[in-house]
Amino acid sequence: MQDIDNLGTARSLLAWDQRTQMPPQGAGVRAGQIATLSRIYHEMFTSETTARLIEEAANEVNGADYESDEASLIRLVQRDYEDATKLPTDFVKRMSELTSRGQQVWAKARAEKDFVQFQPVLEQLIDMTLEEAALRGYDDHPYDALLDQFDRDLKTADVKAIFDTHKPALIDLIAAVSEQQDRVDDSCLHQHFDIDQQRAFALDVVKAFGFDFERGRQDTTVHPFAMSMSRYDTRITTRFNDDFLNPALFGMMHEAGHGMHGQGFSDEIDCTPLAGGGARGYSMSVAESQSRTWENLVGRSRGFWQWAFPKLQAAFPGQFDDVDLDTFYGAVNRVQPSLIRVEADEATYNLHIMVRFELELELVSGSLKVADLPDAWNAKYQDFLGIIPPDAALGVLQDVHWSSGAIGYFPTYALGNLLAVQYYNKALQDHPSIPDEIAAGKFDTLLKWQTEHIHQHGRKFNADEMTRRVTGEGMQSQDYIAYLQAKYSDIYGLS
Amino acid sequence: MQDIDNLGTARSLLAWDQRTQMPPQGAGVRAGQIATLSRIYHEMFTSETTARLIEEAANEVNGADYESDEASLIRLVQRDYEDATKLPTDFVKRMSELTSRGQQVWAKARAEKDFVQFQPVLEQLIDMTLEEAALRGYDDHPYDALLDQFDRDLKTADVKAIFDTHKPALIDLIAAVSEQQDRVDDSCLHQHFDIDQQRAFALDVVKAFGFDFERGRQDTTVHPFAMSMSRYDTRITTRFNDDFLNPALFGMMHEAGHGMHGQGFSDEIDCTPLAGGGARGYSMSVAESQSRTWENLVGRSRGFWQWAFPKLQAAFPGQFDDVDLDTFYGAVNRVQPSLIRVEADEATYNLHIMVRFELELELVSGSLKVADLPDAWNAKYQDFLGIIPPDAALGVLQDVHWSSGAIGYFPTYALGNLLAVQYYNKALQDHPSIPDEIAAGKFDTLLKWQTEHIHQHGRKFNADEMTRRVTGEGMQSQDYIAYLQAKYSDIYGLS
Repeated sequence: MQDIDNLGTARSLLAWDQRTQMPPQGAGVRAGQIATLSRIYHEMFTSETTARLIEEAANEVNGADYESDEASLIRLVQRDYEDATKLPTDFVKRMSELTSRGQQVWAKARAEKDFVQFQPVLEQLIDMTLEEAALRGYDDHPYDALLDQFDRDLKTADVKAIFDTHKPALIDLIAAVSEQQDRVDDSCLHQHFDIDQQRAFALDVVKAFGFDFERGRQDTTVHPFAMSMSRYDTRITTRFNDDFLNPALFGMMHEAGHGMHGQGFSDEIDCTPLAGGGARGYSMSVAESQSRTWENLVGRSRGFWQWAFPKLQAAFPGQFDDVDLDTFYGAVNRVQPSLIRVEADEATYNLHIMVRFELELELVSGSLKVADLPDAWNAKYQDFLGIIPPDAALGVLQDVHWSSGAIGYFPTYALGNLLAVQYYNKALQDHPSIPDEIAAGKFDTLLKWQTEHIHQHGRKFNADEMTRRVTGEGMQSQDYIAYLQAKYSDIYGLS
Repeated sequence: MQDIDNLGTARSLLAWDQRTQMPPQGAGVRAGQIATLSRIYHEMFTSETTARLIEEAANEVNGADYESDEASLIRLVQRDYEDATKLPTDFVKRMSELTSRGQQVWAKARAEKDFVQFQPVLEQLIDMTLEEAALRGYDDHPYDALLDQFDRDLKTADVKAIFDTHKPALIDLIAAVSEQQDRVDDSCLHQHFDIDQQRAFALDVVKAFGFDFERGRQDTTVHPFAMSMSRYDTRITTRFNDDFLNPALFGMMHEAGHGMHGQGFSDEIDCTPLAGGGARGYSMSVAESQSRTWENLVGRSRGFWQWAFPKLQAAFPGQFDDVDLDTFYGAVNRVQPSLIRVEADEATYNLHIMVRFELELELVSGSLKVADLPDAWNAKYQDFLGIIPPDAALGVLQDVHWSSGAIGYFPTYALGNLLAVQYYNKALQDHPSIPDEIAAGKFDTLLKWQTEHIHQHGRKFNADEMTRRVTGEGMQSQDYIAYLQAKYSDIYGLS
């Protein structure tokens, strides 16, 4: 298993290098290297030897505590093995070819704002996704098999219930805020900001959070990401925008949140399939909750800016002289229904996800035809957010996910927002001093709590197990709604 | 074979990242990843399946032209397979443990200038090296089996003959130069030089040479190296010294020379064992000839500086105003018997190598005991270069090679100097315009010639085959001596 994990993380390094360091013409060779490592990984993992070793180990650990490293490793690896052997090689190859073509066609269609070009590929992708769901198997809904790839054991019915529960509250909240939108002015975030100064300030912030640069590094990419090969080698990347402060600053907090998660795996599970951040079967919802905690619950809190705003003023001399803390705090929390998911604020974000989830479900169920997708998309944006995309690039073609075959991924983003608040509330219950500490630039109590309750376990637990273990209850949206209502009542003076 | 090459180059990337990008605490995990890839590489390459495939392929290409890609690939891979299967796993493990410990002991001994600490490990290393030579097999001398690792088919007797032939000429030349040493003043090279300006200037130079940054990159390391994973991804590194111009400038030319070699593999052999820069069985002499060509024959030529010196003056405003071209040309060619091989000039370099070669030969033959090595080292430095090291750190402990088990490597450095001149003379014969082109900042005729005659072939030919193919004769030292005599007669006004 350690050899297999080493192969997997070596492949991760090849991917990291491809996105951060590789010379422009190195892509062809790199694809070959990654394909070789992937093939050997798959062959080693699905070999009869591995099956026998897993079976023997399962007999050995039989009776061990469910939460023990040993029992958890075997439980996870048995599921991984089932997953890896369910799809025939021919299907994997066809799917890989289709998604590779899909992404090319999508990129061109988006550039030309022309959904019709993408339509036939998306139709094929939906068909193959249904084929995949059948191969993987499911009890109630084919979409269950899709969710399971990104969040093991997550069920469509549960996602639907939790989304339906908080959708009206979000819509109401946004309506209330929009009546008070003059109360917030975020023009101070839209200035020219020197990129080296942005980097230095954001690095200081994530160092203070606790991202360990002895065990990690930060680089620049167009599409930011975090990658943990081990708790001792966890890397994050950042996108810089020279006339908008948010992408680099809150983006680096977000990726550092993922990064600290990866740096928090226990030594016992590091470099085993139990760690494996980003591996199949990992809970993407739990992962997202950790990045959102640092980006939003800490990084967009008033307390944090009590500590950080004077430092920001010093880092950008003259640029925030006329801005006070309240104005700045309002600015970074401005609510604005927009067309683009990745730029969405905390109030609107989950509605963007619900649009996609509902459409995916209709497509997979067959109640919506791909040809009708753009109209359905626009109708939902009108219903949920009150705005209609002017073209497909700003609408139905905005995300890469579908073209790459990632159907069932989107919900984890929204669930991550919910879990972030549920877990954070429990941390506050255990350590009521955390808000004051944050306002004093002290973040280790929170990080230590996360590490102890969440990070150290890697992917030992699915999202439901983790959530019940941490909070004593299942996923719910009440905490999130309460958090948003309190925050925006304060900022927007809602009654 | 392509899978095996992909595994090998993936391992190379892990090593590159380790030396240039990896977070400080990532070393342990990295060692595990590299060990896994090495083990899989070895298992795949030495498997019965590989043996069968090589045999079947050999039957298929039977009768193909010796120089054809197909016949060459099989010929090389058959030898690689023999090499890889000659050493028992237990021996490889013991050797790996010994060299790992050897490097630690050596580093401490060097730091404390105390050879006695290193002596017992070196004794074991010599014993195991003899054991390895016996396992690998040889006809005349156990040292043949050691040379073969770094330069396939190179023979001790030939190295000895070529070294003995030119040693007296070098000693005479240095004596003659030392009587005129006041003619050269290199103080202009020893100033404070801004590192960013150094990098920018050196990058401009190697770009002009033809190192392709679309297919390569440059980074900073303490120990510079070049690494070619493919002609499309070839990377070089540089060490910067802020009060001495030479290490970065000539070092980058040197590594770019290796790099352009790696960028020159033909598309047909790229990503196959026929390319494999740095792989076992590659001619390190031929490799070194290519780096030395750009560092010395081009980079230390008067013509080059006719073009480059005004650019250097502009790159370091005010720092070379009082220096004229002749003074600068003399400075970069100053001959100075010194204690340190890596800082040696063109005239003294091969004598440093001969010290090591003669001592290695005596150690392997048993005529010199390890305990007597420091005295023998000092005596040879006195004989060849007229200087005696004040301590072991500046003497017998200066190089890492022996501690890592690399006995038989040193000669290839000196042979590289000889081959560089032999090949360059042939290029000049084919293209008499090259010196004038260099003086005009035009380098593509030379690079194209190298690519056609040398680079494109990868490791298809051993050093002797390559040299006869390129020049019509075997390795010799006359050209090198004639080159040095002409150069230094001019600079030092020798009669």
